[in-house]
This record gives sequence, structure tokens and C-alpha cells, in this order.
Amino acid sequence: MQQSIREIKSMGSFKNNVFDDIPDVMPEEILQDLLVTPGVRIERIVSRGQSSPPGFWYDQPEGEWVIVLRGAAILEFEGEAEPHRLLSGDHLNIPPRRRHRVAWTDPDQPTVWIAVFHADRRAD
Amino acid sequence: MQQSIREIKSMGSFKNNVFDDIPDVMPEEILQDLLVTPGVRIERIVSRGQSSPPGFWYDQPEGEWVIVLRGAAILEFEGEAEPHRLLSGDHLNIPPRRRHRVAWTDPDQPTVWIAVFHADRRAD
Repeated sequence: MQQSIREIKSMGSFKNNVFDDIPDVMPEEILQDLLVTPGVRIERIVSRGQSSPPGFWYDQPEGEWVIVLRGAAILEFEGEAEPHRLLSGDHLNIPPRRRHRVAWTDPDQPTVWIAVFHADRRAD
Repeated sequence: MQQSIREIKSMGSFKNNVFDDIPDVMPEEILQDLLVTPGVRIERIVSRGQSSPPGFWYDQPEGEWVIVLRGAAILEFEGEAEPHRLLSGDHLNIPPRRRHRVAWTDPDQPTVWIAVFHADRRAD
């Protein structure tokens, strides 16, 4: 199939796009399920300056693989001296019960995350 | 925490990045597992002009949620007249046993996909 990028971009789309529907003003984070099955949940998260409250730690029974697609964020893990900086394309897996918090998200642009929550506790 | 985007970008990274390690010449697609658990497998796919052989259909027992992060691709489903154009941020879920093929990927730039294979057949 011979196609130019110009032709491709003119084709209709039947899909959803993770960068669509991001409002200019976001008093709260936007959380949207993209796929829900008994074993996995894929969520879109859009942040703009939001962070976890001081002293708050997420402590989840499921594992969470997370990737930042746009923007910038800082993730902290309990007991670790160095926070984790996340920019576009950075991904990591948070094991079940690994206490973590979002220390910072960029206030000047939307930060778009995809989180894959996986229930199996044997995840590495 | 007050941070400028400049400070953030100078911080060390402890993570993997899906846009790293893409060679200039790619005779074959690159397939890399990013996370493997008994219930979910997350794979990075990098294509550059590759497509499914004529008449070939993927026919998988598991569901596959897929997103294109960079580049461009065209996906076809058996029995559907219109192919699906995928550009950065476009995502869709391929149910188990839904026969599909990659009709085209952009030969002029790498196309970076994330695929989440989820075993549960009750997925919608």
C-alpha cells in the first residue's frame, strides 16, 4: 500500500486519542478509564500542577505500570532519597504495595499519563 | 515543590524511555517486552515501513489494547471496508480473535506503539 503521510492524515479516524479533550482550565486531575477488564484497567490521567497532598502515599493492592506521554512529573517512592523525574516516553512499573506519591506535575502544560493497573501480585 | 521545567530536565532519570534505542536502519520490526506478568504483557513495537504480509491476519487468543505514540500506521480488520488510521495518541482495543493486520507503517519515520496484551477473554 503506497500512502503519503499527507494522505494518511486526511483519512478519517475511528478511534480515541489520548491528547483530545483536554480543557484549558483544570481545577482537578482528569481520570478516565480507557479499558476495563477483570484483570487489567487502563486509565488516562491528565494533570496540570496537581500533586499528592503532603505526607500522602498511594498504597495499592495492584501493580501499576505508568508512562508519561506529554508534560512532566516527579514521582517519589517511600524510603528513596532520589525522586523520579518523568518526561515524555518515560515509563516504570510500581509493584503492589510500593508506597509512592506524585510530588509535582508541571503547572504550565498538561501532563498526560497512561496507567495500566494489573491485578496479579506476582508481577515483577 | 517549586520546580522549573529546566530544572526538571536536568534531573537524572532512573527509568526507561520508549523513544530510546531506535536504530536508523531497521530491516525488521523491533519487539520488546516492557512488563510481563501472568495476566498482562506490555510490549513496545517499533516499525519503519513494515507491514503484515498480504493475506496474513493476526488471530490472537488474548485481547490487545494498542496505542501509537509516534509515527503513523494503518490497521485493517477482517470484514471491515474502512481501514483504521493511527497517528500519535490514537488508541483502540482489539478483542480476542478479532482478525486484523497492519496494512502500512510509515517508511520515513519510526512508528512507536505500545501494546497491552490482556488475557482475560471477557474484555469488552
